[in-house]
Amino acid sequence: MSGAPSDGLALIAGTGALPGLLAGALAARAEPFVLAEMEGFPAAVPGAEPLRFRVERLAPFLDDLLARGVRRVVLAGAIRRPRLDPSAIDPATAALLPRLTAAMQAGDDATLRAVIGLFEERGLAVVGAEAVLPELVPGAGLLAGAPTGADRKDAARAAAIVAALGSVDVGQGAVVAQGLCLAVEALPGTDAMLDWVAATGAGLRPDPAGAKGVLYKAPKPGQDRRVDLPALGPGTVARAARAGLAGIAWEAGGVICLDRAGMVAAAEAAGLFLWARDPGDAR
Amino acid sequence: MSGAPSDGLALIAGTGALPGLLAGALAARAEPFVLAEMEGFPAAVPGAEPLRFRVERLAPFLDDLLARGVRRVVLAGAIRRPRLDPSAIDPATAALLPRLTAAMQAGDDATLRAVIGLFEERGLAVVGAEAVLPELVPGAGLLAGAPTGADRKDAARAAAIVAALGSVDVGQGAVVAQGLCLAVEALPGTDAMLDWVAATGAGLRPDPAGAKGVLYKAPKPGQDRRVDLPALGPGTVARAARAGLAGIAWEAGGVICLDRAGMVAAAEAAGLFLWARDPGDAR
Repeated sequence: MSGAPSDGLALIAGTGALPGLLAGALAARAEPFVLAEMEGFPAAVPGAEPLRFRVERLAPFLDDLLARGVRRVVLAGAIRRPRLDPSAIDPATAALLPRLTAAMQAGDDATLRAVIGLFEERGLAVVGAEAVLPELVPGAGLLAGAPTGADRKDAARAAAIVAALGSVDVGQGAVVAQGLCLAVEALPGTDAMLDWVAATGAGLRPDPAGAKGVLYKAPKPGQDRRVDLPALGPGTVARAARAGLAGIAWEAGGVICLDRAGMVAAAEAAGLFLWARDPGDAR
Repeated sequence: MSGAPSDGLALIAGTGALPGLLAGALAARAEPFVLAEMEGFPAAVPGAEPLRFRVERLAPFLDDLLARGVRRVVLAGAIRRPRLDPSAIDPATAALLPRLTAAMQAGDDATLRAVIGLFEERGLAVVGAEAVLPELVPGAGLLAGAPTGADRKDAARAAAIVAALGSVDVGQGAVVAQGLCLAVEALPGTDAMLDWVAATGAGLRPDPAGAKGVLYKAPKPGQDRRVDLPALGPGTVARAARAGLAGIAWEAGGVICLDRAGMVAAAEAAGLFLWARDPGDAR
């Protein structure tokens, strides 16, 4: 996977399904790229032999990418904040660390902006996953089923809640049913939230015959949309069904759909709607 | 419990421990009061024979309170939004319902403000529980243990999150550890959130030897503080300990401590701090 041309692409892969999807799409189009992963966060990319890097040696890693002809970088998949081994830090990376650690104090969004800044100052453009695979991020419209008027109101309320949360750099999701907020996403993520709603939410809806509720996902208002977009997949649909929800809505253009066909099939089988909602939609 | 004087007090009791505490304090001081409960939401007040009312007949209930000499009302304890039986609504209550149902569409805070408005227009002053029992709501200070600097930062971050949530009329609590938001309170409440942190949160703290995290509670910024203040009790302390937290912080003057001595004993036994935090505290 080396030998990239001088506008070469690197896929810096974390955990989850997205890196494998992107690598597969690039391979299918016979586009060369460099695959890299952070030590401790193995990327699930079948058959690939990734470059491994450590945050403690970020500066030489960036130089290595440049030497391989890389000029564009996609940061895809999840990583957690790594613990640093001070004895492994080289001098060039040490010079970068004060900015990184200061940003980490200020939250996830600031950390990602700082990381993007470090790449770009070296001449490495950071591009979003949809630059590689545009169909990952659906535009506005219904992908499956149709929300009722009550579902649309629940989606609008959930969108307001997610926006308020994003302003304090928390979560990218919420569940609302009949106007009531059943759950708010925090560090454990969407799947954990939906499992919790499945376990606790049934008795909380005031009208048992009323609206069943909506999972809503959106990027945080302040986040850089080239990285860390929220993602949905067929597993999210299955969990939303188990949580007794009417469907899933998300900010059109701001959420990655991993395996859209699989999501639609799962939603149609379970009778859920899937709605890429125009954020300007008043209700 | 009838025969109240003409500035008589009514305790409108929902579920939970608060009504029984207030009734006990009033009885201990030999202060007469009228006890009332909403049908379907039995108040745990030992030995008392409450008036029962239905939302469908709210107007005659308010007239009944006035006829009994009641002029001040405490709304204490929890209720859920009731389902209405249209055939049971009397004409005077029917005239009030459009305002109530409109408020219910706008959320919990609006609903409570509307309810308070209905009482006050009839000449019934709504007072807070601390008007009956001032020691329920501690002022700023430490009640047990002492937060570290990291705990204070976690409390400050959690306070910002709770304030952002309150602006969209959601929850009154959050759990933050090492700057990361482990959980956000929604409809299921504080206990459910803490149980969830106990089940999921251990592996989420980046530094296993670092700050263990803080539960923070505060009223919503827009809420009327005479009703629906968040409450803590010894059970909250026990759950926070099981969730592996360092302690509990809350907005001084804005949170009810049910059984303060029991909370302090539980916190000291478990090594947790209890901190009524000045909301102006920068960190």
